Amino acid sequence: MKNYLRATFEATANIAVVKYWGKRDEKLILPTNSNLSFTMDDKLKTRTTVVFSEDFKEDELYLNGQKIDLNDQSASERMIQLDLVRKSAGFNHKARVASINCFPTAAGFASSASGMAALACSSATAANLKLSNKELSILARRGSGSACRSVLGGFVQWHRGKNEDGSDSYASEIFPASHWKELVNVIAVVDSEKKKTSSRSGMKQTILTSKLFEKRLQTINETIEDTIRAVEKRDFESFAKLIIKESNNMHAVMLDTYPPIMYLNDNSRKVIDKIIELNENKGKMIAGYTFDAGPNAHVYTIENNLEVVKETLKEIPGVKELIVCRIGNGPKQLTNESEHLLTVEGKVKDMFFDEKTKSIISR
Amino acid sequence: MKNYLRATFEATANIAVVKYWGKRDEKLILPTNSNLSFTMDDKLKTRTTVVFSEDFKEDELYLNGQKIDLNDQSASERMIQLDLVRKSAGFNHKARVASINCFPTAAGFASSASGMAALACSSATAANLKLSNKELSILARRGSGSACRSVLGGFVQWHRGKNEDGSDSYASEIFPASHWKELVNVIAVVDSEKKKTSSRSGMKQTILTSKLFEKRLQTINETIEDTIRAVEKRDFESFAKLIIKESNNMHAVMLDTYPPIMYLNDNSRKVIDKIIELNENKGKMIAGYTFDAGPNAHVYTIENNLEVVKETLKEIPGVKELIVCRIGNGPKQLTNESEHLLTVEGKVKDMFFDEKTKSIISR
Repeated sequence: MKNYLRATFEATANIAVVKYWGKRDEKLILPTNSNLSFTMDDKLKTRTTVVFSEDFKEDELYLNGQKIDLNDQSASERMIQLDLVRKSAGFNHKARVASINCFPTAAGFASSASGMAALACSSATAANLKLSNKELSILARRGSGSACRSVLGGFVQWHRGKNEDGSDSYASEIFPASHWKELVNVIAVVDSEKKKTSSRSGMKQTILTSKLFEKRLQTINETIEDTIRAVEKRDFESFAKLIIKESNNMHAVMLDTYPPIMYLNDNSRKVIDKIIELNENKGKMIAGYTFDAGPNAHVYTIENNLEVVKETLKEIPGVKELIVCRIGNGPKQLTNESEHLLTVEGKVKDMFFDEKTKSIISR
Repeated sequence: MKNYLRATFEATANIAVVKYWGKRDEKLILPTNSNLSFTMDDKLKTRTTVVFSEDFKEDELYLNGQKIDLNDQSASERMIQLDLVRKSAGFNHKARVASINCFPTAAGFASSASGMAALACSSATAANLKLSNKELSILARRGSGSACRSVLGGFVQWHRGKNEDGSDSYASEIFPASHWKELVNVIAVVDSEKKKTSSRSGMKQTILTSKLFEKRLQTINETIEDTIRAVEKRDFESFAKLIIKESNNMHAVMLDTYPPIMYLNDNSRKVIDKIIELNENKGKMIAGYTFDAGPNAHVYTIENNLEVVKETLKEIPGVKELIVCRIGNGPKQLTNESEHLLTVEGKVKDMFFDEKTKSIISR
């Protein structure tokens, strides 16, 4: 084998429309319920280069140009994928990983889904593992739950699975990105104070303390079926109402948690009220919102209504930026030398994400 | 009988610790679940004088000195008690009603509970009906659901009841005010925009659309039993945790409603976070919050911890006033001529609530 094994991938964020909230297994990251998402286009992406080499003394991670201390537990836990890949590949080479998040800084998004998906793809490919989508999804899941959805494009289902070892808990594509080309996701980035409950500890508390959570789980499979049907038929009105209700439902069980988990702030509530009002005024559902573990709104609409939705959101005080995403095709391998974030010998290149040109360039 | 029948009562607000949210009968105002409250002292009260006379041509209502148009449906619905009293009394005299709410104007509280309780007491007494507490509570309930709790003092349970005619849906005293003298309710009045979903239409929507509401109803009787037990033992730590969870639970099903109902704003959330933090810092529960259909926090604590709770609340930006209530004894009849809001012939006196002296005086 070659002395240095290298691969580079870009993976994108995904925005759930039926949410993942609650683990049935903390260590293996197995969800309490199946869930659904659309993978976004490259407006929100992470590029990651992995190099394995027997010459390296230890694993090293460079995130947005900064070396990360892997003695930090939360950082090292996310690097578990490297161990899994090494085990499958049958070698024990240390790795050098460089990763750049191409997210507007204002957004303050969690980049774990795109980041861990890009790491799964690039580490498995560098190690010459020929993984199926299912195996790749399971690998990404070990880094971060929702990352298992970002290894696929289009409309994706993460199957809860039943097995204790997690071997049937993976994401698969339900419909490709081309199925519903008119669908658009407008992210309304809102002003907020930075304080945030970690979703990891929050999920745990919900399972331990929420009385309503059990009911959510009892009804969520029907929501999943209904949502798949709406997407299948490209029935935007049904889709919008379903995702609004589902988002409210998740934030309701968060509030029912002790201590309560509250991600929605006054600006989020203004977006909610405005979207409800917009739909009422139009006499039909032309926009549907969903909120993850944060105050920013993800407003799904269709191309024909994009302008009116953008105008409506722009008028809301507290909305500071709009990011328009379309549905993406999933991870992409990059093979040009200029695109790798590490040289072939694993040396970190001085590259960064330039917000003006929205591309990764050398300094 | 005399030509003019007059009576004057003061009734006070009550603050629920297990909430009333949802009607099983809209017209008779029958709740989907039993609920619990403490009746407050006279910091938050309504004084009402009723005069019946065969000389009057029509019912008239004067609220805080202003004549109210009884052709307005929501105003006339609340006057249904007059018809019920006339029917029981076997006469058909028209009534003149004068009512003054003695609430700090900043608070913006709903005064329907104290108002409708005062109307029940004064109209029944003016008509010489000798009603039991149960009958009085049912009468008040017809004016406004939670008013049925304000005809009693201390710790009160509004029994859901089973009968379709509402004859077993009334409030009764579980413990008198003297049972837990140390209990204090600190109302943190917060800045808010005035916009508000009416609780009447909100409740209806919750029943129609919330998937989680059924689970709330399945678990609420246990919450009621646990809360009664905590109050019985004056076990503040259990009490505080129970009421926090119960308030969160109600606001969760509100959020799970379509369209979502959101009464808590960023200032409410700051109070929630601060109370959770205060309890954590003290290593025990010294304060418990509950929110009604609005953003103001009702923070229960005990006398020994009142100062630290007040200091904590005062430091929160967005909290603009604190009102400290203790547990009250229920409605009080006033018989001095100077206290009636109407002359013996039903003429409106020029009286008003003076915020400085906190008393009702003549202009």
